[in-house]
Amino acid sequence: MGFWKNLFSGSDASSAPDTVQTEDYVAADAGEPVPQLLRDRNGNPLRIYFTTDRDIDLYELEELCDAVGWSRRPLRKVRKAIQYSFLVVSMWEQRGAKRRLIGFARATSDHAFNATLWDVVVHPDCQGKGLGKAMMKFLIKKLRSEDISNITLFADPHVVDFYRNLGFMPDPEGIKGMFWYPD
Amino acid sequence: MGFWKNLFSGSDASSAPDTVQTEDYVAADAGEPVPQLLRDRNGNPLRIYFTTDRDIDLYELEELCDAVGWSRRPLRKVRKAIQYSFLVVSMWEQRGAKRRLIGFARATSDHAFNATLWDVVVHPDCQGKGLGKAMMKFLIKKLRSEDISNITLFADPHVVDFYRNLGFMPDPEGIKGMFWYPD
Repeated sequence: MGFWKNLFSGSDASSAPDTVQTEDYVAADAGEPVPQLLRDRNGNPLRIYFTTDRDIDLYELEELCDAVGWSRRPLRKVRKAIQYSFLVVSMWEQRGAKRRLIGFARATSDHAFNATLWDVVVHPDCQGKGLGKAMMKFLIKKLRSEDISNITLFADPHVVDFYRNLGFMPDPEGIKGMFWYPD
Repeated sequence: MGFWKNLFSGSDASSAPDTVQTEDYVAADAGEPVPQLLRDRNGNPLRIYFTTDRDIDLYELEELCDAVGWSRRPLRKVRKAIQYSFLVVSMWEQRGAKRRLIGFARATSDHAFNATLWDVVVHPDCQGKGLGKAMMKFLIKKLRSEDISNITLFADPHVVDFYRNLGFMPDPEGIKGMFWYPD
């Protein structure tokens, strides 16, 4: 069974968006693009790629982050953060020869036990279609394949349920996420 | 004013333990030992070192973690986690030629924006003396000197107040720490 089918199989099937359908899946190692050939309601081909390739145009990423209203950050620091992240995942929509960045996420890690997710973003045009969920499942699968057992994140209040549906637990056993602020 | 004095100055002074007193401080760059010459109540010299040196005997670290009741972990993975952490801090008590590991903490990071602390431990014999606080302030200072602005951690319920006193906020603006568990 292909990865994409896997994503929307079993208990997840009911929440699978009907605007996308599985057509094809080519397994690929980390670092290679993972093409997903999908179709919209009208049968028009819609190709979604997930990739762990870090060669991302930082201006395009900034545009994506602008679209969800995030504060701008120095591109020099964004470049460094991508370089030193353990895993970087991006999601692309391809129409003909043109591709467009529609999602992004990255994880820091000690390469052994823990990973922490940062900068998870899906373009507003593409939200509510199950693509953010698909990207997250892709990311989790990658981390698990690297033997990372503890995947953590800090969720804004309005996305807590999104992550809960993916299997993330808030404050398990009373553990509190804490942020340092200077006195 | 020396670093150690800094640690216990101002509003922190009241919470400074009276079992240790500032005697000396030698500033050092990251990677070099930072000796703290202290005295106990009886005036006996007690030398505490903080260091970012990663050359730690893993069996000694395991012994320290055993002392606080943590589950044992494969040393091969602990070694890798230390190797790939952004910052590793250990705290040592030196008496004559002998030194003993009494504290440990490490941080993962993207080297640009965020750091997350893991495995913060102080030997039970040394708790309640302000040494954990001193180690944490040393660690925060190091991270800040590397231009990391967002320092995060996941705190067990019984240490939330310890971190709060150091300037860490639980769930700021409703942000939730979340952990992934397999379905």
